[in-house]
Amino acid sequence: MDILKHMETALSDLHEAGNYRVFAELERHCNEFPKATFYEASGDTREVTVWCSNDYLGMGQNPIVTDRMTEVIRKCGAGAGGTRNISGTNHYHVLLERELADLHAKEAALIFTSGYVSNWAALGTLLSKIPGIIVYSDALNHASMIEGIRHSRCTKRLFRHNDPEHLAELMAADDPAAPKLVAFESVYSMDGDIAPIEAICDVADRFGAITYLDEVHAVGMYGPRGGGVAEREGLMDRLTVIEGTLGKAFGVMGGYITGPEVLIDFVRSFASGFIFTTALPPALAAGATASIRYLKDHELERQAHKANVAKVRSALNSRGIPHMDNPSHIVPVMVGNASKCKWISDVLLSDFGIYVQPINYPTVPVGTERLRITPTPLHTESDIRHLTEALCSLWSQCALARAVA
Amino acid sequence: MDILKHMETALSDLHEAGNYRVFAELERHCNEFPKATFYEASGDTREVTVWCSNDYLGMGQNPIVTDRMTEVIRKCGAGAGGTRNISGTNHYHVLLERELADLHAKEAALIFTSGYVSNWAALGTLLSKIPGIIVYSDALNHASMIEGIRHSRCTKRLFRHNDPEHLAELMAADDPAAPKLVAFESVYSMDGDIAPIEAICDVADRFGAITYLDEVHAVGMYGPRGGGVAEREGLMDRLTVIEGTLGKAFGVMGGYITGPEVLIDFVRSFASGFIFTTALPPALAAGATASIRYLKDHELERQAHKANVAKVRSALNSRGIPHMDNPSHIVPVMVGNASKCKWISDVLLSDFGIYVQPINYPTVPVGTERLRITPTPLHTESDIRHLTEALCSLWSQCALARAVA
Repeated sequence: MDILKHMETALSDLHEAGNYRVFAELERHCNEFPKATFYEASGDTREVTVWCSNDYLGMGQNPIVTDRMTEVIRKCGAGAGGTRNISGTNHYHVLLERELADLHAKEAALIFTSGYVSNWAALGTLLSKIPGIIVYSDALNHASMIEGIRHSRCTKRLFRHNDPEHLAELMAADDPAAPKLVAFESVYSMDGDIAPIEAICDVADRFGAITYLDEVHAVGMYGPRGGGVAEREGLMDRLTVIEGTLGKAFGVMGGYITGPEVLIDFVRSFASGFIFTTALPPALAAGATASIRYLKDHELERQAHKANVAKVRSALNSRGIPHMDNPSHIVPVMVGNASKCKWISDVLLSDFGIYVQPINYPTVPVGTERLRITPTPLHTESDIRHLTEALCSLWSQCALARAVA
Repeated sequence: MDILKHMETALSDLHEAGNYRVFAELERHCNEFPKATFYEASGDTREVTVWCSNDYLGMGQNPIVTDRMTEVIRKCGAGAGGTRNISGTNHYHVLLERELADLHAKEAALIFTSGYVSNWAALGTLLSKIPGIIVYSDALNHASMIEGIRHSRCTKRLFRHNDPEHLAELMAADDPAAPKLVAFESVYSMDGDIAPIEAICDVADRFGAITYLDEVHAVGMYGPRGGGVAEREGLMDRLTVIEGTLGKAFGVMGGYITGPEVLIDFVRSFASGFIFTTALPPALAAGATASIRYLKDHELERQAHKANVAKVRSALNSRGIPHMDNPSHIVPVMVGNASKCKWISDVLLSDFGIYVQPINYPTVPVGTERLRITPTPLHTESDIRHLTEALCSLWSQCALARAVA
């Protein structure tokens, strides 16, 4: 078998199905977010407005964060220089872990090189090292959680998305003595819907399960101190583990878990994906700490963000552009066709200077292709108007259905 | 079952076996590497010399790198703001990937958030998506490669460490028509020995296998442009994939693979651990690019490093401190007993201001406990003398055997 030939065929299949990904090459402009320079394949450049960033609050350009990062680079250098165990634990990692434990009112925290790794390594370790444990996983959990669960090879039950009744049914059918873990998210990335956290915790309690909540799309964004949806709803103490990211609303990079000291120490001591990897650069840890502290004390960004999300929704409504209703900050504009979705995205970029990546299968089911729009507090009224007008004109050209007013 | 209780017991077992890890909290001083501030548990601080960093050449404090990073933070902000596919591909990622492809004379390169993730995701994807593939893995391969292979669930053969004959035997016993991949490292981290790359490639060629070489401890360090051991030996074109890290000799953070365009595109298109994670901060990509370019053009650091490694070995020899002979830059000082190893490390820190992490089981086999010393070009003659005298005095106190002169 010719291995490279096999790969070529697999890539051709992707092309044919319209699922081949071409990355948009950008250069974001600090102090001018959400503006960026777009690099064409030819090398030509063009200015665009980014409408699909997960730097939800623009903290990636906040001087509180960027100044702190440059300061710590000057002080400690570029990288950490080793794994956490072998010379790589920096003072700023320790400060960040304290800050995160405080954010979620937990005993301890542990940082990872990414949110993906935090889910993969934490779930992979918890579920493989506790004999006989059964995991109950929301059907729409993120790839990183799915891979962590798969890695553990433990017994797995999928419960219907955001359905505590189904969870209860599955749990009732299992051995009451078996240790159990419920894994779910607060805000789901693609639909922007929010889990019934309290109801899920009630079920978990009833069956003696520990709980693991992924708040990556919520930390910094919800709750009076940016602790996430669980903080907003006064439920943080109901969760055994709260997992989050430093790479979205906090604007930097890295992931983490928070929880009981013994559990954090357990993951710290046994997770291969934590132990055998170079630690985060001190400057990233310090920048993230500054970002978290700032968002603990400042409501401004969250309020401005909420206001802009409402403005975008209302502007879309006024032009009949269909978007999925949800209680979060994610605005999925529904196209429902892969090639139209790609075409709209291409024309937005080439003719309107608007960058929104098309979201097609397998990230979302066929027939629900969409533009996943993420307003930030930094988008202006004029940005919003321009986006709406552009979509409106393309909607007509594509003969796409309007939402009923 | 009480899950937290189970964790407590597992941690007690670690304590009892002497394998519980306590991280040394450090603050490295840019412009004064390898000096750092050590934070005691009490909060008191002390100045120490680090002797176990993987920032082998001190590039983490090189202004070429740190200036570039601060410049790009000022220009593009803190984080990337998204996955590579959804707004997270920055111009500096693209430049870095070009630089890496050039470094290893390959058609293309792909960066990951860490070296760990690059091995896990690349091997996990290659081995799970090529039907019937058999992997031949060196018995001492790194945890990240083992996890990637485990993830793929493909057929696996372990060949004896650095033993091409055994590899050939195993291959000869398998179906000649089956696709095959040989995975190995150039410099092995703990023993510092180097693979017989050419002989392994000869065997791979004989049986039509593709080859995957991990050069994380070698990139930046060996070869006229820092391309690794394969570059030094004129063998880069014999490897299908060369994997490396940006977090050791290059002084920053992140990992990568280089190889044929179609293979890189394949991993880019199918690797969950690449697709569903926030991209590296642009400043890390730019800092790493600057570091790679610098080390392509400058032999100074490599020469000074080699000279210091030779000085350390010769100073140890002069005092009869036993260290493992190997052809690399890693100097394993052999203690052979877990509690003595830990004790020496503790006293070096408390009484001599020297930080070397003890390396015990399970990182190395029982009976081969060691201090893994990594000289840098920045250690002075006086640092080397101080280390040797300290070890000499502790060797007597511990009644450890001397090496025969």
